Amino acid sequence: MLPQWIIEKKRNGGILSDQELTDFIGGYVRGDIPDYQMAALAMAIFFRGMTPEEITSLTRVMMHSGDIVDTSSILRPKVDKHSTGGIGDKLSIPLAPIVACCGVAVPMISGRGLGITGGTLDKLESIPGYRTGLQIPEFINVLQSCGCSLIGQTERLVPADRKLYALRDVTATVPSIPLIVSSIMSKKLAEGLDGLVLDVKCGRGAFMKTRDEARALAEALVRVGRAMGKRVTALITAMDQPLGRAVGNSLEIMESIDILKGRGPADSTELTLALAAEMLVVAGVVPTPEAGLEVVRRKWQSGEPFEVFKKMVRLHGGDTEFLDDPRCFPIAKMKIDFTAVEKGFVQDVDAEKIGRASLLLGAGRAKTTDAIDYSAGLSNLMKIGEPVVAGAPLATLHAATQNRIDAAMGLVREAFVVGPASVPSGPLVLERV
Amino acid sequence: MLPQWIIEKKRNGGILSDQELTDFIGGYVRGDIPDYQMAALAMAIFFRGMTPEEITSLTRVMMHSGDIVDTSSILRPKVDKHSTGGIGDKLSIPLAPIVACCGVAVPMISGRGLGITGGTLDKLESIPGYRTGLQIPEFINVLQSCGCSLIGQTERLVPADRKLYALRDVTATVPSIPLIVSSIMSKKLAEGLDGLVLDVKCGRGAFMKTRDEARALAEALVRVGRAMGKRVTALITAMDQPLGRAVGNSLEIMESIDILKGRGPADSTELTLALAAEMLVVAGVVPTPEAGLEVVRRKWQSGEPFEVFKKMVRLHGGDTEFLDDPRCFPIAKMKIDFTAVEKGFVQDVDAEKIGRASLLLGAGRAKTTDAIDYSAGLSNLMKIGEPVVAGAPLATLHAATQNRIDAAMGLVREAFVVGPASVPSGPLVLERV
Repeated sequence: MLPQWIIEKKRNGGILSDQELTDFIGGYVRGDIPDYQMAALAMAIFFRGMTPEEITSLTRVMMHSGDIVDTSSILRPKVDKHSTGGIGDKLSIPLAPIVACCGVAVPMISGRGLGITGGTLDKLESIPGYRTGLQIPEFINVLQSCGCSLIGQTERLVPADRKLYALRDVTATVPSIPLIVSSIMSKKLAEGLDGLVLDVKCGRGAFMKTRDEARALAEALVRVGRAMGKRVTALITAMDQPLGRAVGNSLEIMESIDILKGRGPADSTELTLALAAEMLVVAGVVPTPEAGLEVVRRKWQSGEPFEVFKKMVRLHGGDTEFLDDPRCFPIAKMKIDFTAVEKGFVQDVDAEKIGRASLLLGAGRAKTTDAIDYSAGLSNLMKIGEPVVAGAPLATLHAATQNRIDAAMGLVREAFVVGPASVPSGPLVLERV
Repeated sequence: MLPQWIIEKKRNGGILSDQELTDFIGGYVRGDIPDYQMAALAMAIFFRGMTPEEITSLTRVMMHSGDIVDTSSILRPKVDKHSTGGIGDKLSIPLAPIVACCGVAVPMISGRGLGITGGTLDKLESIPGYRTGLQIPEFINVLQSCGCSLIGQTERLVPADRKLYALRDVTATVPSIPLIVSSIMSKKLAEGLDGLVLDVKCGRGAFMKTRDEARALAEALVRVGRAMGKRVTALITAMDQPLGRAVGNSLEIMESIDILKGRGPADSTELTLALAAEMLVVAGVVPTPEAGLEVVRRKWQSGEPFEVFKKMVRLHGGDTEFLDDPRCFPIAKMKIDFTAVEKGFVQDVDAEKIGRASLLLGAGRAKTTDAIDYSAGLSNLMKIGEPVVAGAPLATLHAATQNRIDAAMGLVREAFVVGPASVPSGPLVLERV
C-alpha cells in the first residue's frame, strides 16, 4: 500500500487500521516515508480527527518505535504524573518524593521548557551538579535506592515522537487531540508504568483555554491509557493565575523545598497532595482519593519526603547543601518589586502574561537553542483574593539586567488587577476524569 | 513571517494575502521552504479552499516562477485550448491546424499521459521524427510559419508547478480546486495567450464525475483567467463513453487525420469544430460561437487544415509520409476483435474501463517512468445508440502480446452493455461557462 493511499484514506475521513498506522509510522521512523508525506498525514489528522481505536493504535506504534524501560526489577507499583503544562507548575518535584514515601515507585521522564511553560529538567538543573541525562540502568538504580528518579528523554525512547514533534512544530499541526494524546501517552507508557495521573491544565495560562477543550483532551488521554491496560486518572485543574508564588528555575526549586517542608503556598501544596493521593489510587495502594490524601498527609507531615528528595538529588550528582540552605542559590543581579498603587484585593493575575514576563526576565526559552538564566523569574506573587496595601509588593522580579526588568515590567503590570471588592479565588481542581 | 504561521492561517480558514503567497511559493521554488511545509499547506488548502482572489494570486505567483513565452512578435491573436483529460481525447491535434487556418495563432504546450488519460505529446511522438522538445525561439518560428505548434513543457516554464505537482501526487492533495486551477492556468497563461478555451470533461471517464463538480471547476478556471485580463470560455463536455472510435497513440493520430479529412467519427469531429468556434470567439475574430462555427466549417471543408498540420509536423521534424498514408504506422502484433454475443443496440460504453484496458494493452503509463507502445490501444469502438449484430466487432484490441490482450479483454467486456432497446447517445456539450 502506497503512503499516499493512506493519506488519502484519512483525508477522506476513513479510519486507519492498526496495520496502516504501523506501516506509515514505522516507515517514517526508518526514513522510508519522507517528512512531506508525514506532514500531509498530520494535517489530514488535524482536520479529520481519529477514533479512540486509531489513537490507541497510533500511541502503541509510537511507543514501540524505540525501547521500553524495563521496570520489572522494581517490585513496587510504578506510577507517574504528567502535566500538560502551566505557569509556576513545579509540582513534579515535591510530588515524586512524597509518593515514593508511600510505597510507590515514580519513574519520571520529563521535558525542558519552551515558550512560556517552564520545564522540570531546567528547574532541576538549577541545582548545581544535578544530572538529568542518566541512562536507563542508572535510572533503575536510583529508583531502587530511593523510589523516585527524574530524568530527561533518552535517544532510544520513542524516536517516532521526537521526529514527529519537531515536524508538527513547523507544519502547524501541533493542536490536534490525536497527535497530542499519542505524543504524551507514547512517552509516558514507554516508562514501563502501571498507572498514570494526568494533570490537564485549563485556562488562560494553559494550552487548553476552555473547560470543554480540557475535558476532551483529558477523556482522550484517559481512554488511550485504559485501552492499553493501565490505570489512568485525569484531574482538570485551573491555570488562570500562576500556580504557587514562584515562577522561574531555582525560584521554583526553593518553593518545592518549602512545599516539602510544609511551609509552601496553599495552592501549590494542596494540588501536590491531591495529585499524590490520586497516584496512590492508580497504584492500587488505597481505594479512594480521600484515603490516599490521609496517607499522603501523614507522610508529608513526617518530613520523610524531604529526606527522600535530598537522597534522589545526591544520587543524581546534585549538591544537597543547596537544599538544606536555599540561600546558597545564586541571586539575580537585579531584584525589583512591582508594587500596588492603591489598597484593595487582588482581582486577577493573568498566568499567560506572567509566563511571558518570566521568559523576558531570562527564565525560559523562546526557541530550543536559547540559554536559560536559572536565577531569573518572579517570586512573592500575590494570589487572587489576597488583600494588598498601597506600596506593598505584588511580585518580585529577578533578572540579570535592568533591561530585562524593564522589558518584563509592562507585562507584570498588565497581569495584575487590584480592586476594592474581596473576591474568592475559585477551586483548583475543576473536574476528575 | 515564519512559513508555519502562513500554514496555520490557512489551516484556521484565513485568507492568504498576495504577499504571503508570494513569500511561500517563492520560498518553495527557491528551496528555502521545504517540501514538508508545502505539503502541510497543500493539505490545509484541500480542506479550507481558497477565495477567487487567493486562487488568482496563487496562479500569478506560480506563473511568474519561471519564464513567460514572449509571443509579441506574433501579430495574430494567440489562443489555446486546454482539456481536463478524457479517454480518446485527441482533439488538440486536429483543432490546432483548423484554428490556425482561421487567422488565429495556437501556441499549445501539452503534457504526457499518466494513468488512464493519454497525452497529446505521446500521440504526436508516435509520428516518427516529431520533436516535442522545441525550445521557445524555435516554437515561435514554427508558430510564425504555420500558425500552430504543439510542444512539451520546458524546464524554464512554471517551475513552481512542476515541483508542486510532483509533491501533490504523493501527498494526496491532487483533487483540490484551488490547486488544480492554479496548476492549469499558470501553465496556460505562461504561453503568452490572449484567450483560452477550456474543455472541462465530466463523467465516469473524467476527473470530475458530476456536473456540479465540473461546473465548480469550470467557473473557477474562467474566473481566474478573466481576473488576469484574458478572454476565457469553458465548455463542460460529456466523458461517459470514449471520445471518437480510437484510444491509443498512433491509433488516435490516424483518427485525427480522419477528422481533418472530413471522415472522422461524428462525435470527435463535432466537438473539434465546436471548440474551434469558441476559440475564434475568444480570439475576437467572430462575435458568437454560431458565427465561429460557420467560419470553421468552411475552412475545414477546404482541406487546408490538413496541409497546415502536415507543415507543422514537418517543421517539428516529423515524417509526413505517415500522414499521407497512415498504413505506414507500425501495426501491433496482436489485433483481436471483441465481438457482440447477441444483436441489439449499444446501451453503454464505460470510458473509465476502456481507459484502463488501453493502459493494460500498453498504450499508457501506470507511472511516469513506464515506456509506451505507440501502436497499442483500441480502435473501431462502437458508440452508444449504434445497432450491432451477433458476432460483429464492438472494438478491436491492439497489443504486442496475447498476455496484454487477455489482461485487457475482461475490462472491455465489462465496459460494453448491449441491449434490445434503441437508446439516444446524449449531448456532447453539456454547458457553456
